[in-house]
Amino acid sequence: MRVYLDNNATTKIDPLVKVKMQPFFEDLFGNPNSLHLYGMEVRPHLNKAMGKMYDALNVPDEDDILITSCATESNNTVLKGIYFKHILKNPEKNHIVTTSVEHPCILDTLHFLSDYGVDVTYVDVDENGGVSAEAIKAAVTDKTVLISMMWANNETGMIFPVEEVSAFAKENDILFHSDAVQAIGKLPVDLTKVNVDYLTFSAHKFHGPKGVGGLYVKKGKQLPNLLHGGEQMGGKRAGTLNVAYIVGMGLAMEQAAGHVDKMNTEVRRLRDKLEDALAKIPDTIIVGPRDKRTPNTVLISLRGIEGEAMLWDLNRAGIAASTGSACASESLEANPIMSAIGEDPELAHTAIRLSLSRFTTEEEIDYVIDAFTKAAERLRSISSTYGYKSEAG
Amino acid sequence: MRVYLDNNATTKIDPLVKVKMQPFFEDLFGNPNSLHLYGMEVRPHLNKAMGKMYDALNVPDEDDILITSCATESNNTVLKGIYFKHILKNPEKNHIVTTSVEHPCILDTLHFLSDYGVDVTYVDVDENGGVSAEAIKAAVTDKTVLISMMWANNETGMIFPVEEVSAFAKENDILFHSDAVQAIGKLPVDLTKVNVDYLTFSAHKFHGPKGVGGLYVKKGKQLPNLLHGGEQMGGKRAGTLNVAYIVGMGLAMEQAAGHVDKMNTEVRRLRDKLEDALAKIPDTIIVGPRDKRTPNTVLISLRGIEGEAMLWDLNRAGIAASTGSACASESLEANPIMSAIGEDPELAHTAIRLSLSRFTTEEEIDYVIDAFTKAAERLRSISSTYGYKSEAG
Repeated sequence: MRVYLDNNATTKIDPLVKVKMQPFFEDLFGNPNSLHLYGMEVRPHLNKAMGKMYDALNVPDEDDILITSCATESNNTVLKGIYFKHILKNPEKNHIVTTSVEHPCILDTLHFLSDYGVDVTYVDVDENGGVSAEAIKAAVTDKTVLISMMWANNETGMIFPVEEVSAFAKENDILFHSDAVQAIGKLPVDLTKVNVDYLTFSAHKFHGPKGVGGLYVKKGKQLPNLLHGGEQMGGKRAGTLNVAYIVGMGLAMEQAAGHVDKMNTEVRRLRDKLEDALAKIPDTIIVGPRDKRTPNTVLISLRGIEGEAMLWDLNRAGIAASTGSACASESLEANPIMSAIGEDPELAHTAIRLSLSRFTTEEEIDYVIDAFTKAAERLRSISSTYGYKSEAG
Repeated sequence: MRVYLDNNATTKIDPLVKVKMQPFFEDLFGNPNSLHLYGMEVRPHLNKAMGKMYDALNVPDEDDILITSCATESNNTVLKGIYFKHILKNPEKNHIVTTSVEHPCILDTLHFLSDYGVDVTYVDVDENGGVSAEAIKAAVTDKTVLISMMWANNETGMIFPVEEVSAFAKENDILFHSDAVQAIGKLPVDLTKVNVDYLTFSAHKFHGPKGVGGLYVKKGKQLPNLLHGGEQMGGKRAGTLNVAYIVGMGLAMEQAAGHVDKMNTEVRRLRDKLEDALAKIPDTIIVGPRDKRTPNTVLISLRGIEGEAMLWDLNRAGIAASTGSACASESLEANPIMSAIGEDPELAHTAIRLSLSRFTTEEEIDYVIDAFTKAAERLRSISSTYGYKSEAG
């Protein structure tokens, strides 16, 4: 049996989405910017797909949704756009507030920009992996130009206070960006209710293809292009349009929005069942209260078991999990969220993330509960640190 | 009958490439950066695809090929990377030399950077649409940090003197970048013979998918990321890898390199046949000597016939052509290359580009010759400007 529980890293393509993309790998190959029939015949498909995205976010036509190649591009577009438009032109407003647990594509970009005069405050998370709106507000100064805070965290699933922070940003004339990569399809993301200026999403996190994402930009808040060039996307993101993937993302986003309820009922029930069972294993820590997390995620730490060791045992059982973000997985460093919440270094190396999708079945969860529990027993039986601590205790 | 002769804008996907990509839309959906089996099983496919690209360009492993989302991203990466790494840090070296007929993603990026202290010299083309190495050399100053010159022009097919200019750049310690989007698959692009530091390519120009491209970077010439974030691509281009398209591009590039001979024999013969037939229409101008052009391209101007009018007549006959770059086609402006070579404004509006591919057949070319000739007759019979000129003459 194979069970995929690494859906916060990437998801399988919805079979409906796959079918929908096929014609664009065949006869419908025209460049939609071309004036001839090959170009014209693909445009209605693009327009329909864009309409689905506007609907999913509940935003009006006058705002922009720029199609990018991934969330990384969307986030780089916002941060470097702010740099060029605001900070380089007015160094008095050079301060950005973010959290210490954003995705690497936020943190690494800000580290880069720090070398060029950008001042960044990284607000720490609390012991649950949460961020309080108060902590964000306290970090703001009269030099703050932007607050960038993810909607929900990729490693813990913890939901951040975007509604309150975005309202605060608006009152104080500060731009607000949210990386909503982990929210789309798991939580309602209705932009009539949350006042974001910029919002990032990525198709492959909600059963669309890898290599396409989006950036919502509120009317009047346009930024310089990250990709300058042709007139695609109203001149705001150049590059020949990836028609197949845009069509795929449109359908994937419609499906994701349509399955938020299922995620918060059926999938949540399966996640809770899994979590309850794993919590019975002695000496485990589960990060964050479950009602404050996305419904598909659990991050569990097992004292005395290296995350990588557990990953390999699960892998042998056909189960895909993660020790943290896939984007940093090659480095085998301590899980950054565990470090951020102040766990001791040993525990920071023992985190395992399990993330479900709407395609996860009860049978799969039952199988994982059994395999995970056995793996924990086996690994602890050979763990020098766990044995040592037990003796010491 | 439908005939696609707009292959410099985009190409249809090679059916072999389409088949090759399918598994990655199905079971092989893992994130290659993940440590579990879903991640591991896709990596050999990625490595194989990358190997095909290194082979196609004849470059060693120690150099980098970064996968991007398109040529626009590759070109923005080079120009903005040069800005951050060299110009912002050392404003004494703030000069870039390019040509006035580069793709919009070069020109627009340089216009943008001009606002931030970058000094750009745009070298004009001659009456054939060509650029001389001497003109490039003459534009260089002691402040020049980069020369960016395309390998071949998208509108005329004119081949630029990359070998001589790249050797000159190396001698003078100036970085050299070439946008080779129009060269791959049409000309030999062997980087042991041309000394480029950076080279741009795009899959959808050689029968790969739209939405993936590449940037070759010579060892030691690394630039700051355009997309900061995770550790993908050795940390040099972040963003979850678009596995399906990378695998597709690898095969497409292998096929393209393997068909350069066919392009320069069979396809060239068809292009020449088409060109010879169209040249018999009175009062036409064909831009550039054919032996100095890519083998698939002809840019023809017909006095008295608006390019758009011809485009529509061809379109009604099922033939896809172009008045110029698809990336600027929505603006219906004068063809920039025709303006650049100094044609009068009337002629600048009468250009039609026909670009063949290795899938173009003789039957298609015969059909186009007939339809094009009839369209020219029909449009001239109702052209006020052409009639007036005839009477005046």
